[in-house]
Amino acid sequence: MARPTPLSGFPEWLPADRAVEAHVLDVLRRTFELHSFAGIETRAVEPLGELLRKGETSKEVYVLSRLQGEAGDDHAGDKRLGLHFDLTVPLARYVLEHAGTLAFPFKRYQIQKVWRGERPQDGRFREFTQADIDVVGADTLPFHYEVELPLVMAEALSALPIPPVRIAVNNRKIAQGFYEGIGLDDVDGALRAIDKLAKIGPDAVAELLQRDAGATPEQARAALDLASISGTDASVADRVRALGVRTDLLEEGLGELVALVTAAAERAPGVVVADLSIARGLDYYTGSVYETTLVGHEDLGSICSGGRYDSLASDGSRTYPGVGLSIGVSRLVARILSADLARATRAVPAAVLVAVASEEDRPASDAVAARLRAGGVPVEVAPAAAKFGKQIRHADRRGIPYVWFPGADGDEVKDIRSGDQVGADAQTWRPPADDLWPRVVAAERGTS
Amino acid sequence: MARPTPLSGFPEWLPADRAVEAHVLDVLRRTFELHSFAGIETRAVEPLGELLRKGETSKEVYVLSRLQGEAGDDHAGDKRLGLHFDLTVPLARYVLEHAGTLAFPFKRYQIQKVWRGERPQDGRFREFTQADIDVVGADTLPFHYEVELPLVMAEALSALPIPPVRIAVNNRKIAQGFYEGIGLDDVDGALRAIDKLAKIGPDAVAELLQRDAGATPEQARAALDLASISGTDASVADRVRALGVRTDLLEEGLGELVALVTAAAERAPGVVVADLSIARGLDYYTGSVYETTLVGHEDLGSICSGGRYDSLASDGSRTYPGVGLSIGVSRLVARILSADLARATRAVPAAVLVAVASEEDRPASDAVAARLRAGGVPVEVAPAAAKFGKQIRHADRRGIPYVWFPGADGDEVKDIRSGDQVGADAQTWRPPADDLWPRVVAAERGTS
Repeated sequence: MARPTPLSGFPEWLPADRAVEAHVLDVLRRTFELHSFAGIETRAVEPLGELLRKGETSKEVYVLSRLQGEAGDDHAGDKRLGLHFDLTVPLARYVLEHAGTLAFPFKRYQIQKVWRGERPQDGRFREFTQADIDVVGADTLPFHYEVELPLVMAEALSALPIPPVRIAVNNRKIAQGFYEGIGLDDVDGALRAIDKLAKIGPDAVAELLQRDAGATPEQARAALDLASISGTDASVADRVRALGVRTDLLEEGLGELVALVTAAAERAPGVVVADLSIARGLDYYTGSVYETTLVGHEDLGSICSGGRYDSLASDGSRTYPGVGLSIGVSRLVARILSADLARATRAVPAAVLVAVASEEDRPASDAVAARLRAGGVPVEVAPAAAKFGKQIRHADRRGIPYVWFPGADGDEVKDIRSGDQVGADAQTWRPPADDLWPRVVAAERGTS
Repeated sequence: MARPTPLSGFPEWLPADRAVEAHVLDVLRRTFELHSFAGIETRAVEPLGELLRKGETSKEVYVLSRLQGEAGDDHAGDKRLGLHFDLTVPLARYVLEHAGTLAFPFKRYQIQKVWRGERPQDGRFREFTQADIDVVGADTLPFHYEVELPLVMAEALSALPIPPVRIAVNNRKIAQGFYEGIGLDDVDGALRAIDKLAKIGPDAVAELLQRDAGATPEQARAALDLASISGTDASVADRVRALGVRTDLLEEGLGELVALVTAAAERAPGVVVADLSIARGLDYYTGSVYETTLVGHEDLGSICSGGRYDSLASDGSRTYPGVGLSIGVSRLVARILSADLARATRAVPAAVLVAVASEEDRPASDAVAARLRAGGVPVEVAPAAAKFGKQIRHADRRGIPYVWFPGADGDEVKDIRSGDQVGADAQTWRPPADDLWPRVVAAERGTS
């Protein structure tokens, strides 16, 4: 078998890098659980008909077939199974399927792989991990969750070994209320044009607004004025009102936006910014919308996005509104690793390598290892009774800080970094807390 | 959208049941890490050519295609991508791909979903979670890992809320050495016949041995005599030798088997049993082989199987031997749930629901929640400023044991099980350890 080569778009980490990813996932999970989101997983597949509700993503789906499937064996058409491309479609289906059993509002987190059937040559991730939180209500969902959820994400992200984040927020009601107030009826068309602002600049967007969204030059000007407003306090609303447009929907949206940035300024100072140029997602979100960038790594795009849906799901008799955000974990971890933002202090769990004097003495070394593990210390026993120098090199190559030497007259343990060797009892000896488990440390702080 | 129905073969848990699964995975992960197995994940897909090395599994593979793939866009034939059906094929590929970087012996654990393209109507799991440990050497791998690995699994399984397990062990070298010693050349054919012993009985197996494996009646009798031997100490080898067959390979196998059961009797008394009727897997394993049953739930079949491969992988210049075991986590969790062996003490993480007196007071409740969370207490804030009775029922329905009432003259916390309500300070108050996080408890022990 020739040496295999990586598959483009399917990231895979070596053990030390996987330890960084596992740390990121542990921090997210703990933060989500402190806020009482219940963890669930959904199956990797959904019927194709469900996956294609939002037609625009249809070209990104992987469809499954059984290699030895008989004719007529797979469900046909929309009942074929595809791999989920996000965790929102599965959540909507899960909520409907279990609506009779779940307690609402239902707060869940979900950390799973998703797949996108991208063309291999496009270099995009075709498999990656997402970490989502959502709150889903039955028929109603109070606005305050639109404040709570981005703040949970801010807390989770701030606990990671990454630079600070900025969460830019907007509200569908502001754009829609404003556009309707100036008589610009093609709200979604206008949003599509505004979405290109950073890329093509205001003059080109003004043209697009007129050509594609049917705006007059004055309407295009007003839409650009609205999109130019940003800020971190209630003055944002004043500046919108100064544009002279008043509708009930606009006022409702401004009230929500101000409530969000005001609460955020207190609870996570400097993180949340109102940015009325945010248009992505406003075609399907119905209230708040969130986009998160990593300071100094804006080229990554949004690492955590989401918003409010008035109808995440509906079964005819009830409607389930939701608000949620999703972290693109794989892309974030890939950046942590490529930019050397953080690293694991070692690639293996063991804090201690128990040396083996001779193969006949292996049971004694195994017994020492068992006593250390009973005290919660991760331990490896030397693979072979080689010369002690070789066993120490085995530990050194893996970053294992201590080597333990069982002895007839008492054991000794050596810190192979300092060379210090002292008598020790496996029943009671414990390494310093910083050495007990591998830690993930910001790269500039250095190891241990 | 109509109420969706479950997809046969794709298990999915409600939050309280998922908490049981998450606990199982946490226990496994911790045990594996205490033994210094490094956690990795591999991509979900492999090239079809890799997946089909063992031809017999070919009919169980799911093949991917891009929904909107252009002609010629997917790799053809064996380069098509399929979902992995176990974690061993991906491990072999990962080891070869990263052989230059990994330190050998390489000890890894891997907990991931796998998929089998079963016919839906067969009712088998088509998606399930496996938890694997393996040690892979470069060119050589000492026998002592064949003792260590089943004992790690015994320790992991004993930490779960399940009945005791029995790990039945055999060794390919015994069967092969014995059959060759009696002149029965079709070793794999003989093993296939012996594999049916429990199902069809010795007389039918004797016929199969003659018809399909070319055995004489005497050879069939001897093979059945060998398969009838089991035990937990060195006497097993004596009973094999009493059958009067001697070959070097048989002696080597007996020596290994005795070393394994002897070490196991000391380190995990009562768990490991030599059983020379075990034939499953002996066609591809080259040394020890393991099958694990749950006492009282033998109908489940093996919940944890594995063995030694002299050549897990090879790249022409080097060969990588390995030994490993795999737990079928989904099947085990499904049984824990269906047999009510264990359950989570509550379905949501929160130990405390902070009540909200009025929506204007929500920031005060949020502040209390933040203080409790800073102390490591999982907290939920009431969704709405309903009557306190309704807020208490919200907690009760979710199993949240405490409701916190912020007050101008000091806060109070109520244990809603006992009704006790006392003054408390969010900075310092902590619930009893048993209430802090949801726990998974054996069902007969009951909830706290």
